Amino acid sequence: MIDADRYPRLSRIDTPADLRTFDASELPAIADELRAYLIESAGKSGGHFGAGLGVVELTTVLHYLYDTPEDRIVWDVGHQAYPHKILTGRRDAIHTVKQKDGIAPFPKREESVYDTFGVGHSSTSISAALGMAIANRHAGNDRKVVAVIGDGAMTAGMVYEALNHAGGMDQDPDMLVILNDNRMSISEAVGGLTKMLGRMTGSRTLNAIREGGKKLLGDKDKAPARFVKRWEEHWKGMFVPSTLFEEMGFHYTGPIDGHDVNALVEMINTLKGLKGPQLLHVITTKGKGYERAEADQIGYHAVSPFDPEQGLVSKPGAVKKPTYTDVFGDWLCDMAAADPKLLAITPAMREGSGLVRFSKEYPDRYFDVAIAEQHAVTLAAGMACEGAKPVVAIYSTFLQRGYDQLVHDVAIQNLDVLFAIDRGGVVGPDGATHAGNLDLSYLRCVPNMVVMAASDEDECRAMLSTGFDYHGPAAVRYPRGSGPGVAISRSLDVLPIGKAEVKRRGQHIALLAFGAIVPAAQQVGEEFGFSVVNMRFVKPLDRQLILELAKTHDGFVTLEDNVVAGGAGSGVAELLAAAGIVMPILHLGLPDAFQHHASREDLLGEAGLDAAGIRGAVLARFPQQQDGKLRASV
Amino acid sequence: MIDADRYPRLSRIDTPADLRTFDASELPAIADELRAYLIESAGKSGGHFGAGLGVVELTTVLHYLYDTPEDRIVWDVGHQAYPHKILTGRRDAIHTVKQKDGIAPFPKREESVYDTFGVGHSSTSISAALGMAIANRHAGNDRKVVAVIGDGAMTAGMVYEALNHAGGMDQDPDMLVILNDNRMSISEAVGGLTKMLGRMTGSRTLNAIREGGKKLLGDKDKAPARFVKRWEEHWKGMFVPSTLFEEMGFHYTGPIDGHDVNALVEMINTLKGLKGPQLLHVITTKGKGYERAEADQIGYHAVSPFDPEQGLVSKPGAVKKPTYTDVFGDWLCDMAAADPKLLAITPAMREGSGLVRFSKEYPDRYFDVAIAEQHAVTLAAGMACEGAKPVVAIYSTFLQRGYDQLVHDVAIQNLDVLFAIDRGGVVGPDGATHAGNLDLSYLRCVPNMVVMAASDEDECRAMLSTGFDYHGPAAVRYPRGSGPGVAISRSLDVLPIGKAEVKRRGQHIALLAFGAIVPAAQQVGEEFGFSVVNMRFVKPLDRQLILELAKTHDGFVTLEDNVVAGGAGSGVAELLAAAGIVMPILHLGLPDAFQHHASREDLLGEAGLDAAGIRGAVLARFPQQQDGKLRASV
Repeated sequence: MIDADRYPRLSRIDTPADLRTFDASELPAIADELRAYLIESAGKSGGHFGAGLGVVELTTVLHYLYDTPEDRIVWDVGHQAYPHKILTGRRDAIHTVKQKDGIAPFPKREESVYDTFGVGHSSTSISAALGMAIANRHAGNDRKVVAVIGDGAMTAGMVYEALNHAGGMDQDPDMLVILNDNRMSISEAVGGLTKMLGRMTGSRTLNAIREGGKKLLGDKDKAPARFVKRWEEHWKGMFVPSTLFEEMGFHYTGPIDGHDVNALVEMINTLKGLKGPQLLHVITTKGKGYERAEADQIGYHAVSPFDPEQGLVSKPGAVKKPTYTDVFGDWLCDMAAADPKLLAITPAMREGSGLVRFSKEYPDRYFDVAIAEQHAVTLAAGMACEGAKPVVAIYSTFLQRGYDQLVHDVAIQNLDVLFAIDRGGVVGPDGATHAGNLDLSYLRCVPNMVVMAASDEDECRAMLSTGFDYHGPAAVRYPRGSGPGVAISRSLDVLPIGKAEVKRRGQHIALLAFGAIVPAAQQVGEEFGFSVVNMRFVKPLDRQLILELAKTHDGFVTLEDNVVAGGAGSGVAELLAAAGIVMPILHLGLPDAFQHHASREDLLGEAGLDAAGIRGAVLARFPQQQDGKLRASV
Repeated sequence: MIDADRYPRLSRIDTPADLRTFDASELPAIADELRAYLIESAGKSGGHFGAGLGVVELTTVLHYLYDTPEDRIVWDVGHQAYPHKILTGRRDAIHTVKQKDGIAPFPKREESVYDTFGVGHSSTSISAALGMAIANRHAGNDRKVVAVIGDGAMTAGMVYEALNHAGGMDQDPDMLVILNDNRMSISEAVGGLTKMLGRMTGSRTLNAIREGGKKLLGDKDKAPARFVKRWEEHWKGMFVPSTLFEEMGFHYTGPIDGHDVNALVEMINTLKGLKGPQLLHVITTKGKGYERAEADQIGYHAVSPFDPEQGLVSKPGAVKKPTYTDVFGDWLCDMAAADPKLLAITPAMREGSGLVRFSKEYPDRYFDVAIAEQHAVTLAAGMACEGAKPVVAIYSTFLQRGYDQLVHDVAIQNLDVLFAIDRGGVVGPDGATHAGNLDLSYLRCVPNMVVMAASDEDECRAMLSTGFDYHGPAAVRYPRGSGPGVAISRSLDVLPIGKAEVKRRGQHIALLAFGAIVPAAQQVGEEFGFSVVNMRFVKPLDRQLILELAKTHDGFVTLEDNVVAGGAGSGVAELLAAAGIVMPILHLGLPDAFQHHASREDLLGEAGLDAAGIRGAVLARFPQQQDGKLRASV
């Protein structure tokens, strides 16, 4: 329970309706309490941190001025939604964020009526808000719609598609887009837009200049009015080039200080009453009010539990196992040293994808394209056309954004692009939006692709070398976090394409495991004396081995941390069917459902993909194995 | 062979090297011959027509000034590439375009070294060209890179992603983007960008005004230089708001007349020598030089063979079978009349997707979002949040562009969106880029989706009603062109979700067919006395029926016009495996390869999906069926 002494106002705010009972003069104090509470609770729970601190004032003002949940606030990405959750009925549960059965790390429709649109991936908010605005007008509702989007998220093409549509409609939609400009995405924001925003919000007191400019113009109703009006627009444009948004058809206001509650109240109150598509440009500081987070915005983007008095401390002594991300980052630098043709691309995930070291050691060969997965993939295709060897480092779930480009630009042309797919399979606390549960299915159906799934760190490295060496499109998929902790060689040796690794020769049943689930399969295989194969290649499959094992075994079990539907195991069954082989096969994998947030271990367990689950499923299907004799339970 | 009397110059141009032997003063005459030849040959072959006519001068000048194929010209989409093909060694084969073993309708790397990047989908050219420019700089090559992109293609988000990246790089890439502005995509261009381009190229003689503006400024090197320079930029901006591109970091030039050969030569020659990212804005007329095509730009976008003297004539008398596209269009209007909550969305494919009538009858409920598939899908999600019932009309292959949005915004939230997926399965003459061979695989793995495949026109209508009525995400997939020609009811009745239709009860083998392939399956089934099922639902499958048939049959054959990998048949095998049933199963479907362009019938035949192919495959797998006895050929 919240401490009513420390938080005299916040403790009385269970919903935005309570917030709206306060006088506007108390909003700054409420924002202060909200910030303090957020620091306290995030210290306990960990989670996304800096983004929320940056929008404490904005969140308070929006829920104060708008009639939520009747009016709709759409938060882009959702990293910044903790203050929103605190003000909308989840104050006392905020410390459970990201935990199993706790509250979700992002807005989620099934969690609260105040969460109008579920997010996790960036740059969807304007499209969603426009859809809401259109549907409401069509239904005759006059509720307001507001989208809040960061400058980092503004780089994705779908934002531009949405602006283009909203600004060019015959009937102007009524909506407010708030550009929360903190000059950051998760990593640094990059690209032409960022430079433009930089010019828009330089060192001067811009509003003062703009006001001055207006005065110089005198009475704008005088003749030649048209010329003067244009002149005014472009005078303004000289200092505040709002033109990108205005050219798209939005009415631009700003920039204003997003930590100035009174300015926000005044401005948003005005915009609330205006018709047509409005864009308000707000300048905020990520991590605002917590000094260490302001100073280290990348480090405090998302945190583990920490003592706010101390800040984040790295624990010395305990040598951390390298994560798969680390393995990729090291491999990338080693391969870059060996092959000058290597170029690396990331869609704004330098830290998350393990490219920090590479970006420093090979700045000329490092391309952060901003949040722009579509472009990232086709850029790689263009590079490959000219003989370069591009590596696209991308999260499984974000590759969905570049799917057409992978098919149309890379695979159809059989171009030499390596996809290093991090966060494949079960991801965990970030929830369904970040789950990499589908990639083996959506990649396997694409002709020309070579698809690998890593079962340990060293193999991951070998697979990266293999995919890089292979002349054509290849993907290596590896899970979040660390693996079994095997020794990692420094070699750049390759694996034979389409060859599996027999972990043990046993009898009756062969466990054919893909990727991260191999160790659990091995454990069960040893227990029962089964054969165990680390399949390595989802595509092409090791046809020869599978046919051989089919002759010498009574049944197959396929195992993968991907949905069963269309997954790697399904490929094994297709191969058997094509070969005219009829034998019992059991597919173990992720369910045909979106998983909730919880730890990776919990989710694998729920899906029956830990050793206990595998054991149970195998015995249920092949019960005779308990006494050593097979009879398929047909 | 080309007639040397009619085409005295063009007949001597086998490659661009030949073109470059002419004096520049002859270029207008060469362009005239090229246009006449294009009209003549397209009249014979059909194909994309208007776009090519619009770039005759531009194509001639580019190949004249640049050292192709060493320098790289990247054509966006490729509708406009016929003149390019004629000038680059394919003059005498251009009449074979789109035909089996003829030349491809789009640039294709394996067809010609002059085709630097394969296209078909729009808006990839800037990304690809940037990748080339970067790779060339990295490799120390100084070849030039040019991307030619239409204004319609400029609406897609990936263009913006590419501009943002190119314009914001620390080290400016040397590349020229030519914006071929004809105020059209395939249909009319829409959105804020189009309005902006309209303002940029209004009724005045813009260059004259700009020059005048510059003169007014006097010597721009005088003090206060900084102010004057800004003033100049914004003075220019008052009349030519090039700001979108300049804000992104491109140097903007234009607009110029794209049919004025001399102007093009002069301008492009200048730009060729400049460093950094350049954008040249060229105004052209789609269909230029063929009066009927200029007057009916949508009708002449792509044509069947026609007599240029006569123009396109609709053949009276012969009543055409309605296409699936027509069926969708009629259903949409009927359902809109019945349910005021229906809203329809198209990403710039009003004509192709059958929305012309709807757009006229329900203009307020019709949303053409421009080429913007990502936005189209999330817009629908936003609409569904507010209780509207959005229908997204989209081609199978273009839905790949909205895949993440389908997963992340629609399916995870289980929102009530209907995807009407045209051009599912084998598409044909447009080649691999337009093939809808993957959709059942990439949709089936997504939780919460209901996926249907239509086997005839009337069923397509019933499926659309079913998906619309279903409360959650649903997809109806139907093929290009017309179906078997069954009578189409006017009803809006729905089908039971997840229930298949038994076409005939037979014995030994059950043919489980999905979608367009059902009639061929039925033919074979009747021949051999097999059972035949129109499965209707790819997801959820009719589990009860499958289990029942498994008990009463000796083998299953699944049939679909989707790749086998992860396809509908694979889902049947997964269901059997999950139920512990072991029985012979044969999957017939499309190969694990990208198909070349040819007629739909040819491609289905090649894949063994016509009656003859099915018959052969079934007998090869179940040879005993020839004498009525089953023995699985294990």
